[in-house]
Amino acid sequence: MAWAPKKLKCAELLSCKHTDKLHVKCTVTATDGNLDQTKEIQQVSLRPLPGKLIADLNALVDRNTFGDVAILVGDQRFLAYKGVLSVRSSGFAAMFNHPMQENIENSVTIDDVEPEVFKELLRYIYTDEVTCLETMAFKLYATADKYALSTLKSICRCHILKTLSLDTGIKTLMLGDTHSDRDMKEYTLQFLSRSGVAGKLTSTADWKKMFLTHPHLVNETFDALARKVASTEE
Amino acid sequence: MAWAPKKLKCAELLSCKHTDKLHVKCTVTATDGNLDQTKEIQQVSLRPLPGKLIADLNALVDRNTFGDVAILVGDQRFLAYKGVLSVRSSGFAAMFNHPMQENIENSVTIDDVEPEVFKELLRYIYTDEVTCLETMAFKLYATADKYALSTLKSICRCHILKTLSLDTGIKTLMLGDTHSDRDMKEYTLQFLSRSGVAGKLTSTADWKKMFLTHPHLVNETFDALARKVASTEE
Repeated sequence: MAWAPKKLKCAELLSCKHTDKLHVKCTVTATDGNLDQTKEIQQVSLRPLPGKLIADLNALVDRNTFGDVAILVGDQRFLAYKGVLSVRSSGFAAMFNHPMQENIENSVTIDDVEPEVFKELLRYIYTDEVTCLETMAFKLYATADKYALSTLKSICRCHILKTLSLDTGIKTLMLGDTHSDRDMKEYTLQFLSRSGVAGKLTSTADWKKMFLTHPHLVNETFDALARKVASTEE
Repeated sequence: MAWAPKKLKCAELLSCKHTDKLHVKCTVTATDGNLDQTKEIQQVSLRPLPGKLIADLNALVDRNTFGDVAILVGDQRFLAYKGVLSVRSSGFAAMFNHPMQENIENSVTIDDVEPEVFKELLRYIYTDEVTCLETMAFKLYATADKYALSTLKSICRCHILKTLSLDTGIKTLMLGDTHSDRDMKEYTLQFLSRSGVAGKLTSTADWKKMFLTHPHLVNETFDALARKVASTEE
């Protein structure tokens, strides 16, 4: 169909009456049935289908039906592959390279992690992805540190520091201290020394708690604030 | 150290004698030792470490030490995980979902694939990556089709079609025909009908071979050429 519309000017349209008619004249051209197939053929895509490794491995974690070791966490039982755990985490590699009873029986009990946190750890190990940072970055950070998953640890650290607030500051300082994470501690001390934060700190419940359990961190926060004051006065 | 070099003009340099001397005068400024630490603290990176899932899983393929099924291919033995094979390939899923003798004994023999091709298939299954397309795209395509790995098949198809030449044209046409790959066949017929290719075709060894083994493809190539001629004369 040859399509060549005549352009209508705005003034022409506005001057139309309700009873006016618009005539549309079309020229339709039919082929003789022998469509040129070369154009269709040239459209064969030379771009491969998108990969789906991550989606497939995520399914492996969610199905929980394949594995050569059962990991008992709280009231849940996770099936996993020793090989995948070992190449991903030197912590698990050490566990499975020794003839421990757990290794021989292909059953491991982990009692210092919550099941939902362990499942996210497993998901990260299989897929490099983390889906629950909003709710479990702190717990996941601690577990990643335990199993020597440095990249996951850095992902959690970045999330925690990017979302640092008066509510999470002290908790973050204590986390960094417990896990000897100098970067986390220094960044947080810097944050806690800010005007607008430092002034509200001593009245929070977390500060009162830290005062009793981690008095050295009170001193470190005080020192950071003193440095801040000194640098402002220079 | 304050660094403020005086610019030397080219003419000045060229007019120098061998015995001339260049005096460099530096002003060195030392701090009092109390470096401002806040700047250093602010430089804590908020970018996580790069993921290394693919490198880790590649190591799993190369080490060949973990698995719950032994796959015997020619004179080589590959260890792999049924779960990984199953979530990635519906062909393997079908194999491991049935109580076949091979499945019960956790040992499978594959006799229609070369060991090095199977290793690349395994690498793709574990990592979504293919490293040997240049040398084994045709064989890998056939194996990917057998195990229903559609993405790997499309990767091989794209490579084969992108590198299509007079040397690979007939082989590609036969491959597409054997595997009922309409796209591959049509793209290749289009290529073989090109001036500069069609004229040299009948004198190649592959054409003579195809003439005996796949006479219907000779006809299809002839028809494609006839269509090309017709479309040129229109």
